[in-house]
Amino acid sequence: MRAFNYDIPTKVYFGEGKIKHLPDLIKQFGNKVLLTYGGGSIKRNGIYDEVQDLLKGCKIFELSGIDPNPRIETVREGAKICKENDIDVILAVGGGSTIDCSKVIAAAAKYDGDAWDLVMDGSLITDALPLVDILTLSATGTEMNFNAVITNFDVKMKQGTASKHLYPYASILDPTYTYTVPANQTAAGTADIMSHTIENYFQAEDNAFITDGLSESILRATIKYLPIALEDPENYEARSNLMWASTVALNGLTSMGKGGGWTTHPIEHYLSAYYDITHAVGLAILTPRWMRYILSNKTVDRFARYANKVWDIEETDDKFAMAEEAIEKTYQFFVDNGLPMTLPEVGIETDEHFEEMAKGPAERLSRAYVPLNPEDVVEILNRCMTEGSE
Amino acid sequence: MRAFNYDIPTKVYFGEGKIKHLPDLIKQFGNKVLLTYGGGSIKRNGIYDEVQDLLKGCKIFELSGIDPNPRIETVREGAKICKENDIDVILAVGGGSTIDCSKVIAAAAKYDGDAWDLVMDGSLITDALPLVDILTLSATGTEMNFNAVITNFDVKMKQGTASKHLYPYASILDPTYTYTVPANQTAAGTADIMSHTIENYFQAEDNAFITDGLSESILRATIKYLPIALEDPENYEARSNLMWASTVALNGLTSMGKGGGWTTHPIEHYLSAYYDITHAVGLAILTPRWMRYILSNKTVDRFARYANKVWDIEETDDKFAMAEEAIEKTYQFFVDNGLPMTLPEVGIETDEHFEEMAKGPAERLSRAYVPLNPEDVVEILNRCMTEGSE
Repeated sequence: MRAFNYDIPTKVYFGEGKIKHLPDLIKQFGNKVLLTYGGGSIKRNGIYDEVQDLLKGCKIFELSGIDPNPRIETVREGAKICKENDIDVILAVGGGSTIDCSKVIAAAAKYDGDAWDLVMDGSLITDALPLVDILTLSATGTEMNFNAVITNFDVKMKQGTASKHLYPYASILDPTYTYTVPANQTAAGTADIMSHTIENYFQAEDNAFITDGLSESILRATIKYLPIALEDPENYEARSNLMWASTVALNGLTSMGKGGGWTTHPIEHYLSAYYDITHAVGLAILTPRWMRYILSNKTVDRFARYANKVWDIEETDDKFAMAEEAIEKTYQFFVDNGLPMTLPEVGIETDEHFEEMAKGPAERLSRAYVPLNPEDVVEILNRCMTEGSE
Repeated sequence: MRAFNYDIPTKVYFGEGKIKHLPDLIKQFGNKVLLTYGGGSIKRNGIYDEVQDLLKGCKIFELSGIDPNPRIETVREGAKICKENDIDVILAVGGGSTIDCSKVIAAAAKYDGDAWDLVMDGSLITDALPLVDILTLSATGTEMNFNAVITNFDVKMKQGTASKHLYPYASILDPTYTYTVPANQTAAGTADIMSHTIENYFQAEDNAFITDGLSESILRATIKYLPIALEDPENYEARSNLMWASTVALNGLTSMGKGGGWTTHPIEHYLSAYYDITHAVGLAILTPRWMRYILSNKTVDRFARYANKVWDIEETDDKFAMAEEAIEKTYQFFVDNGLPMTLPEVGIETDEHFEEMAKGPAERLSRAYVPLNPEDVVEILNRCMTEGSE
């Protein structure tokens, strides 16, 4: 086990009806609230009205229309509202994009320069407004971590930042709020959860026993409950397990004692920055091809463990066969749950930008589980152009 | 999954050498420190000198000799030192007894009445001195939770209290500090970890998938690493996995989405209060007998899962056979690792107090996984008088 520090101040209120805590959570900070949300689904499903009702007496400013792959322009707009109106607390209602955007707004509200500085260098974040969120999509894990990812199309960059000031003060996780999430977003969100877990699971450190066991449980939970949630969107058991999976997959617990760089996320960030595709779909497309690409004598033991513990593939002497079956099952799971699994299906028809895109994450990929150079990345992207996990 | 709140402010510094953070952690609160510890092993293994060295410039007061099953008298003594000397922060170096005692000292230092009030009613705790601890025994999980157990022999009670003010501010978990823990304490501490996990695992709520998976990983870790730590006390992999198991087993993660009352702990508290036996040994003795006693049509599915996921017992149609094999393995594991497994071996030679003791936890046991009345408890205690898990 590697050394680590664990310091997660976020309070989590998990379960149906936990929104009842909202007034206390918000009003302790003041009565000027910036309410942030995305495309308006919260108006259709009633959460918007519920929030307005619970926060009677507060002065609520709004920033709506936050996009998937949230833009730096939106962050700047939110920070301006906060500064001009002396906002006390931000309430983000939505999924990862809304919450990530709101995290950086919270920091930018306390920063004199341009918000993009804070994305490029998290150490510039020295303060932030308090942030409370109500999660409506099980996916990114942002509800209990200190990360945020912002896109700047001017410079074709999708960039992550991190700071201890970015932890939400509190997150309200009510699984019933995900009942209306459409099938494609439910599947993509689950692919995101799985990808976070897999990135931490496939690392050189091999004896963080409890951490690896937790990761296996998260993956098994997603495999069990995604099909149930698609079949029966109001299944509380499925939605609650996917929601807790989202949180635990990326609140730090799956990396305690592990460590090392990630692979598919750095690559995917360039796919999204060039083509604005859904982040998690990009991850789903990349994951099985990356797995197959790095399968070797050096990695086969971990893949065999993944095969046995996650996919219930029987242990045999032929570990490569176990590994390949597991990779194929990973691919097929995404296919079976309706995810587009080639780049052309998401609108990336040619390889024209692959070489340029492959250069972007080179430095990060030099520290990955299996370090990759730009040629490796181009090869993986090429394999994503056609069907199959090979 | 049941609803829950997750709010654990404790910072954890895990790994060899993490004591380097001690000066910053302590000095932010002031320079008057109450150092608490037990029987002096920290002087033999060098931690005491290291602490003195790192805290040069601080005024250190000492409270040593904190007993296993820490006494209310010691709490009173510690609180007196804090009040008379205007202590800024408490530094506890030791295992669960030292840290539990220090938690209640921290609270009693801010309370005008008698410290036992705070043990009998945690809601009376409204403030506490900050507490930093250096853990030297993997066992109770107190390093990351808000519980403390104190014994009052005057009234023959071993009583738990809880308050959000009792969370340690920070815990330093250096697995190398457990290298010198003797075999019997290593085994007892591991039994404690297992018992916490088992109490949360055997509950009616059956679909907290990730939580149950985490519990199974913790139990598998203890089963794998206890024998290694006994054979090779300076095995970092074993000591680090046992230490993280200790923390995760009782920081709340194994009960998220679960819930319900515990069983062996309430019973054991009366064994310790009447006979001052080692808490964890009492738990080890009780656990397999309690398991066998409650095995029924209603509980057999969970026992079969425990058999398969924790003990690798093959799934068959005969779930009772699986369950019984798992219970026997649980018993035999404790025997094999040197734990005394009958009450006479720990000095409880007769059943003279059983009926009286069985009345104490009656109210709590009415809410247990399988509710027990005093007659049930007497029967379980009687079965603990002789060898075997039946």
